[in-house]
Amino acid sequence: MQAGPCLCHFPGNALAPPAALSPADLGGGGSSPASGGPVDRALLEDLAAASRFLSLQGVVDAFGHVSMRHPDAPDRFFMSRALAPALVGADDIQEFDLNCLTCQGDQRASFLERFIHGEIYRARADVMSVVHSHSPSVIPFGLVETPMRAMFHNAAFLAAGVPVFDIAETFGATDMLVGNCEKGKALVGVLADRPVVMMRAHGSVAVGPDLQSAVFRAVYTEVNARIQHQATAYGGPIAALSPEEGQLADKVNFKAGHRAWDLWRKTAGQ
Amino acid sequence: MQAGPCLCHFPGNALAPPAALSPADLGGGGSSPASGGPVDRALLEDLAAASRFLSLQGVVDAFGHVSMRHPDAPDRFFMSRALAPALVGADDIQEFDLNCLTCQGDQRASFLERFIHGEIYRARADVMSVVHSHSPSVIPFGLVETPMRAMFHNAAFLAAGVPVFDIAETFGATDMLVGNCEKGKALVGVLADRPVVMMRAHGSVAVGPDLQSAVFRAVYTEVNARIQHQATAYGGPIAALSPEEGQLADKVNFKAGHRAWDLWRKTAGQ
Amino acid sequence: MQAGPCLCHFPGNALAPPAALSPADLGGGGSSPASGGPVDRALLEDLAAASRFLSLQGVVDAFGHVSMRHPDAPDRFFMSRALAPALVGADDIQEFDLNCLTCQGDQRASFLERFIHGEIYRARADVMSVVHSHSPSVIPFGLVETPMRAMFHNAAFLAAGVPVFDIAETFGATDMLVGNCEKGKALVGVLADRPVVMMRAHGSVAVGPDLQSAVFRAVYTEVNARIQHQATAYGGPIAALSPEEGQLADKVNFKAGHRAWDLWRKTAGQ
Amino acid sequence: MQAGPCLCHFPGNALAPPAALSPADLGGGGSSPASGGPVDRALLEDLAAASRFLSLQGVVDAFGHVSMRHPDAPDRFFMSRALAPALVGADDIQEFDLNCLTCQGDQRASFLERFIHGEIYRARADVMSVVHSHSPSVIPFGLVETPMRAMFHNAAFLAAGVPVFDIAETFGATDMLVGNCEKGKALVGVLADRPVVMMRAHGSVAVGPDLQSAVFRAVYTEVNARIQHQATAYGGPIAALSPEEGQLADKVNFKAGHRAWDLWRKTAGQ
Repeated sequence: MQAGPCLCHFPGNALAPPAALSPADLGGGGSSPASGGPVDRALLEDLAAASRFLSLQGVVDAFGHVSMRHPDAPDRFFMSRALAPALVGADDIQEFDLNCLTCQGDQRASFLERFIHGEIYRARADVMSVVHSHSPSVIPFGLVETPMRAMFHNAAFLAAGVPVFDIAETFGATDMLVGNCEKGKALVGVLADRPVVMMRAHGSVAVGPDLQSAVFRAVYTEVNARIQHQATAYGGPIAALSPEEGQLADKVNFKAGHRAWDLWRKTAGQ
Repeated sequence: MQAGPCLCHFPGNALAPPAALSPADLGGGGSSPASGGPVDRALLEDLAAASRFLSLQGVVDAFGHVSMRHPDAPDRFFMSRALAPALVGADDIQEFDLNCLTCQGDQRASFLERFIHGEIYRARADVMSVVHSHSPSVIPFGLVETPMRAMFHNAAFLAAGVPVFDIAETFGATDMLVGNCEKGKALVGVLADRPVVMMRAHGSVAVGPDLQSAVFRAVYTEVNARIQHQATAYGGPIAALSPEEGQLADKVNFKAGHRAWDLWRKTAGQ
Repeated sequence: MQAGPCLCHFPGNALAPPAALSPADLGGGGSSPASGGPVDRALLEDLAAASRFLSLQGVVDAFGHVSMRHPDAPDRFFMSRALAPALVGADDIQEFDLNCLTCQGDQRASFLERFIHGEIYRARADVMSVVHSHSPSVIPFGLVETPMRAMFHNAAFLAAGVPVFDIAETFGATDMLVGNCEKGKALVGVLADRPVVMMRAHGSVAVGPDLQSAVFRAVYTEVNARIQHQATAYGGPIAALSPEEGQLADKVNFKAGHRAWDLWRKTAGQ
Repeated sequence: MQAGPCLCHFPGNALAPPAALSPADLGGGGSSPASGGPVDRALLEDLAAASRFLSLQGVVDAFGHVSMRHPDAPDRFFMSRALAPALVGADDIQEFDLNCLTCQGDQRASFLERFIHGEIYRARADVMSVVHSHSPSVIPFGLVETPMRAMFHNAAFLAAGVPVFDIAETFGATDMLVGNCEKGKALVGVLADRPVVMMRAHGSVAVGPDLQSAVFRAVYTEVNARIQHQATAYGGPIAALSPEEGQLADKVNFKAGHRAWDLWRKTAGQ
């Protein structure tokens, strides 16, 4: 995987408004990275469907994004152009390198926070998909001192611990966005080898070994948050999953997640 | 009813992926139990509709299952193959014996936790239907020390007490699933003669003397949970149903449950 | 208005299953009271629409009912036969006298709790419509010691105070239902001249000077409950409406309620 | 901008029922102010769509309203006639002067609380759009001593502080409505230069430099309220946005709000 210098401030790749491009432009701008190669369109349709499903589920609203590593090129990933998740179709998917430059001269506006994705793919060879969301139920766990714990077996992946990334610790007062490689690297430092990280006063990130697992984790992080809010109201101890139970239960989730995906994929439509 | 040795680890009945079967295979594998006999297809359509309704109602999500004892063969029961509840149709129903082996060589993948159902049918002659779900509102009552109580007359069946089954007490750290007969028997030991049992860090089970009652109890266990969460927030005593009030009110529910079912059956569609 | 002895135990009017009736039966059974006279069918359609709207709004679920006093005969009222509120159409409306006997020999099954309605119409000449519901948000206020208060101007009618009727105080352990005239009278004694009463471990009743107002009050009792739950969580004083503010604001609601009704009537469909 | 005496009690402009008007009447009543000039119909369609979207989102219910300053005449603004927000179309929009008199003799009934809008436009040259709503999640922050704070970057505009307007402080016991210019001016005095103000036992107001921003702020005030309710339940400190973070993050919202609007405008339909 590419580990060169971060090029995220490269001027030609700034958040540009969609513009009419000549066919020559689309063929590949000089400094725009090359594609990792063609992929089955069904993959892009699955990625777009994940975006729409997460919107239907309330995990994302007008904001949030889901990405997928290129199956043949570990230093490339796919993510929608800057667009509300409910509106994403396969044609809206852009390809990026790990510096979050769009490939092949694609000049459509990209998400400001694509660096969350690029830096996770750079650092975590096990991760094939990333979801970033601002679920209202989850955000409290980035604001309070009580950590999120695993309330039930479908959220077993949380039993590994859910750290909180406070962007202010490294960068002081900011616009709260992970808008360049440095901020992405700082986030990855807190995520470490875990599946989920909270972002203070912002949202959260869930990662997985495939698209289906990342979506599953984003969904059940949200469900788990609601359960923990209600269990907490009783004021006593909470018999959450132990780390060992979490490990054992999560193995089952990996298989079961695909059963959920079968439903969710249908729900999202074409 | 059959009380022989548990055969749930019989290799030919493992959680197998759906496979192309020859007509001969479908005719009945050597050791696959025989059917309890044909049933009116409307029964299977009702069972499938119950699955879809529970999904629409939010009692189940991509997971959870509802079963029905065979009306003519008390040692057989019906339940969907492993499939998201919203997608279940009558053709997805499998028949099981009480060891949770599929009848007549049906090799489609079954739910891992069918043993919840089989062991309840084995132990409780009064039970004709079982619902297992992971409702986010209900799960807290398997995690905290405060027991669920009956907040109103539609949830009167809860006034008998709602015990909590902690799988770790008998089996230590597990994947939390009731995936064999032994675990099913342990769950039944805690359920005893009651209509509902919580499962720590997992979900709950509701049983009833017919499909309509089991669905009614699953629905109102969820509603009751939400009421108790809010009543608890006031910090004082809660004037829940007394056990005697619960017994009297539940007799009315049994009739009224069929009025609800008329609505729910329509809601679930064909 | 009729003030004679309660006839609710009259055997011919018991909760009977729908049965095939001969035309002669329908013409009027010997002891079945006469109708208060024909009414505009649009009134019955409005009443049925109110039932469906309250279901869409989540104020009622498979249970609950709304009634309307006969506009020309103060000792008669209209209410749906025993049916889930979402399914009610104008043809499902029955006419009752104040003893809750169906008029003109209508032998379709009636709601067990029609006595809530009959006794309120008997005692409160100002009431033209009654809603009985089991909203999960409202039920806590029948269970805890904290009274419901008016959280905002649309719920101003609550500033008059919201008493709690505990059926056990007079009748001991029961099935919790207001299933005869005596229980209805006891409920009315607690309601007194107010617009809303809580029923312990059961639900609530809202009344109004017309159908639109009763529906408005049922809706905003539910909304007010949700607001009070959340305001209470902050642990300090709550600057609810004063009784004087409540009186002033409720005058506006009476007009504004008709604006809401225009929307709700459309929402409910034909 | 006009700063003359308040004419809100002008009798010809009272809340009148819709009436059949002769063509001469519609041409402009003697004392009814003139229009600020024709505007692109797409603007009015956007304003009507904002009304419908806020209803779909649950920010408004049968009540609430959104307005827009006339783009060419700063002393005129547009707002729906008195109508449930879900039903508003472009033809329902009325034009007002800053005294909240309808222009060109439009005698359709107007919202009682149009003075919220008129007085904000009079005092705040930076404001081009105003939303008034009664979201159940937001109302608690007008009732309790805990102020609303900015829980995440999308609600960064709240980091400037969210004051509470208690109409009783100046006007004693009222019907709680901002039903004339004096009450509007008192509200504006508390709002000052901020984007959002709570109204005790009533609702809230959000303003913005364009329609899209005002809608964005109304939506995320509601979302922020839900987050703060849940974060508060943990009982410890809440790491909300600092004022500086709020300023930085809100600059991004202004751009991103238009991405949300693209989705919301589609959601609202024509």
